[in-house]
Amino acid sequence: MSKTNPGNFFEDFTVGQVIEHATPRTVTEGDRAVYGALYPTRFAVPSSAEFAASVGLSPAPVEELIAFHIAFGKTVPDISLNAVANLGYAECRFHQPVVPGDTLATRSEVIGLKQNSNGKSGVVYVRSTATNQRGEVALDWARWVMVRKRDVEAAAPETVVPELASVVAVEDLVIPKGLDFSDYDTAAAGEPHRWDDYAVGERIDHVDGVTLTDAEHMMATRLWQNTAKVHFNVEARPDGTRLIYGGHIISMARALSFNGLANAQLIAAINAGAHAAPAFAGDTVYAWSEVLDKADTPAPGVGALRLRLVATKGHDPSMTLRGEDGTYAAQVLLDLDYWALIPQ
Amino acid sequence: MSKTNPGNFFEDFTVGQVIEHATPRTVTEGDRAVYGALYPTRFAVPSSAEFAASVGLSPAPVEELIAFHIAFGKTVPDISLNAVANLGYAECRFHQPVVPGDTLATRSEVIGLKQNSNGKSGVVYVRSTATNQRGEVALDWARWVMVRKRDVEAAAPETVVPELASVVAVEDLVIPKGLDFSDYDTAAAGEPHRWDDYAVGERIDHVDGVTLTDAEHMMATRLWQNTAKVHFNVEARPDGTRLIYGGHIISMARALSFNGLANAQLIAAINAGAHAAPAFAGDTVYAWSEVLDKADTPAPGVGALRLRLVATKGHDPSMTLRGEDGTYAAQVLLDLDYWALIPQ
Amino acid sequence: MSKTNPGNFFEDFTVGQVIEHATPRTVTEGDRAVYGALYPTRFAVPSSAEFAASVGLSPAPVEELIAFHIAFGKTVPDISLNAVANLGYAECRFHQPVVPGDTLATRSEVIGLKQNSNGKSGVVYVRSTATNQRGEVALDWARWVMVRKRDVEAAAPETVVPELASVVAVEDLVIPKGLDFSDYDTAAAGEPHRWDDYAVGERIDHVDGVTLTDAEHMMATRLWQNTAKVHFNVEARPDGTRLIYGGHIISMARALSFNGLANAQLIAAINAGAHAAPAFAGDTVYAWSEVLDKADTPAPGVGALRLRLVATKGHDPSMTLRGEDGTYAAQVLLDLDYWALIPQ
Repeated sequence: MSKTNPGNFFEDFTVGQVIEHATPRTVTEGDRAVYGALYPTRFAVPSSAEFAASVGLSPAPVEELIAFHIAFGKTVPDISLNAVANLGYAECRFHQPVVPGDTLATRSEVIGLKQNSNGKSGVVYVRSTATNQRGEVALDWARWVMVRKRDVEAAAPETVVPELASVVAVEDLVIPKGLDFSDYDTAAAGEPHRWDDYAVGERIDHVDGVTLTDAEHMMATRLWQNTAKVHFNVEARPDGTRLIYGGHIISMARALSFNGLANAQLIAAINAGAHAAPAFAGDTVYAWSEVLDKADTPAPGVGALRLRLVATKGHDPSMTLRGEDGTYAAQVLLDLDYWALIPQ
Repeated sequence: MSKTNPGNFFEDFTVGQVIEHATPRTVTEGDRAVYGALYPTRFAVPSSAEFAASVGLSPAPVEELIAFHIAFGKTVPDISLNAVANLGYAECRFHQPVVPGDTLATRSEVIGLKQNSNGKSGVVYVRSTATNQRGEVALDWARWVMVRKRDVEAAAPETVVPELASVVAVEDLVIPKGLDFSDYDTAAAGEPHRWDDYAVGERIDHVDGVTLTDAEHMMATRLWQNTAKVHFNVEARPDGTRLIYGGHIISMARALSFNGLANAQLIAAINAGAHAAPAFAGDTVYAWSEVLDKADTPAPGVGALRLRLVATKGHDPSMTLRGEDGTYAAQVLLDLDYWALIPQ
Repeated sequence: MSKTNPGNFFEDFTVGQVIEHATPRTVTEGDRAVYGALYPTRFAVPSSAEFAASVGLSPAPVEELIAFHIAFGKTVPDISLNAVANLGYAECRFHQPVVPGDTLATRSEVIGLKQNSNGKSGVVYVRSTATNQRGEVALDWARWVMVRKRDVEAAAPETVVPELASVVAVEDLVIPKGLDFSDYDTAAAGEPHRWDDYAVGERIDHVDGVTLTDAEHMMATRLWQNTAKVHFNVEARPDGTRLIYGGHIISMARALSFNGLANAQLIAAINAGAHAAPAFAGDTVYAWSEVLDKADTPAPGVGALRLRLVATKGHDPSMTLRGEDGTYAAQVLLDLDYWALIPQ
């Protein structure tokens, strides 16, 4: 029998099943540096140990998306190796900052199953939890993905569709212990705009664009030990292109959003995410944001902004999300809904 | 007189000559991260400080190939700058794990010389030894390389061909101090297959492929401070291509072999290696392995597998090594023979 | 009003104005590794903690150019986002080694202004100072850059042109505290040539060439958090190319200069620098050096060489700097004048 991992197919999943994902991964200062080489990020907390300490975080955490990509990458060989499409995320919360030296391991529980009417595939819902070396939760999230069946004749499981919140409630956001924005230095952080300066409904064109290369997206995706073949192998797709990992676009858009949201220092939660279109080397990615909501938090000087972060292929100064038919506009690559922590 | 290094030519070498190579190099967590961005490696020991500690290794060693490439790279300016071909390796042993903070320096002794019948070049045999900052041997290996003569009229040296073992004997393998696979966690490591599950003669198609880029192979090769011009300069070869460092293919194949050999955690020795064909950007590399031998070791729960690791250009499910004429099949890039340590 | 940074225009600057640049940046071992993957550097001090300690520097500093690029990158959003051309550098001194863990922040003072006769732009002179987490100066430099006006009707400021030294005087060079080359190991460093072996007027062809890729120069430029659009976005320039950050050429040339100047371990000062022509992916960069001056220093065994480092597109064995008309020869990309510290 083959020793290689064929991945799980739709009929291999059962509701309540718990999967411990390989392999644990220690985060280092090397990850921070490679991340900084791959994305134009400048947020002051992960950039500067001094700045991080000045807001109560020491040692300086790495970007939340580093933790997210690592934790997510672990789930790929078990959950989405035979995926047709990554359908969505929900209820992603960052429970504590991840710092160099932390080792992350990820476990997933199957929380829902729904076979498609064509009988060839089905939707698998999982809740994944990444813990650190102390067994504490670092982050968790729900995700649903369309997975092929190995055997189209396999019986359909009972349909279970979990109830997932469309937005993480403000009171459920976890504020990093010790975070204090009372003496926040906007000059060092790069922009004067604080929580009060953002209005619900406001849109911000982040202006800058980055043209993607194959070498860079592959390096990023490997850094997360994500093994999905389509990102690395031109022979894995009929058109001979390498499909770019959706997380690469998330990180690129988040980094570009510095220009206009420099003080949205920390990601507290990801409410939802959709990869509206595939991206390829040669595409030039831009980003814009919309303020969806605002909330206070119990931490000193810390406010929360709920933001829609949209990545587009080519610059779209009109910041159009959807066409008249309600579907995403052609240039939209990513529609991400998240909560950021920002000084008041 | 020119101050730049012209490299040594065949007639510059004498048997017994010892060359101290420049420059010492400190290994860091940064190297681990860059390596993980360049190769799809997921072996649990170098990936996780926690996993490494659970098998008796703390701090977590970097992959043996990081140490190999660094130590090997040091020899290039003195040994192989004027090489026509890298002919082979033998007797490469890893004497102790290399961890971040270790500084490696390499020394080579010329152990053989044999001028070619054409009088234009000859084979130089060296034994190279990399030591750490405590003067302890980290790894050593023998290598032979065909080197051009500066002056074809120069007299041929006495022929000395060293006897080199075709395989490192099991009793000569150095097991890292403290290594203990008694409580090995296969779930965390990624696969259930232990030493007992592998049979001599078994072949494993590692299935996955990676398409190479110039940026990535150059970054890898620079990380090892390897200066061979053909890897970096399109003007150094008539066809305007950059020849990929053979070690890049070794690391890529080793990383791909995770899928089917996830528990072959450590490389204890490299018995032999041949770069059967050159590789270039755009090639898609796949790998397969053959179990050549099995052996017990004195360390608790630790078995050894002698493996042939073959990298191919394009996927070869037939896993064909040689054609009917005994030469390597056209798609074969690398044929590497090594001992891995794996839980029993 | 837009929240994104439009950068400063010529009329936004006033002489005496002080700008605190965002965002502070902590240097790590990860930066050293990524730098070593991007440039073929082998200088023994930054390569080896052991070698560095043997010359009195512990922990091992990172290359001065890492500090320079980081410090310089900070100034871009405020000083040169609307630059037409980067005209020159002067009086750049490295005041102390930068080591992993140091956090750099940069401040600039406007020291001169001169509107161009066309009224559309002007030259801004700044003196920039990067300090570490202890408030000590790590490096400082003067730079002048041609910046567009927002409004061509804006009144011209009074012309102030600062006096800048064409060369940092030897007595103003800062020798790193504790630096001692008395027991310098040339074998470990890679070349036998010491201070005494170099003659004023001598030229050294560094022989090796590197062909540039877009992925690599973008990664380098991002590592320094340099945000100039033209380096990343093919839509930012009419010809659809990505202009390579001038600092990428500086680092590439410096690394190539190892071959012939392996013992020019530390950069003490940059006297002047001109980017004579733009560079693009596909160009093959070579370098040559000229010894402009020699000087003794008070540190034991430490001499100083003033060097002209020239990067060219394609190999120019004639080492021609300028044509008959006095302008740079067509192949010249960079003309950098610096002081290096080298064992006597």
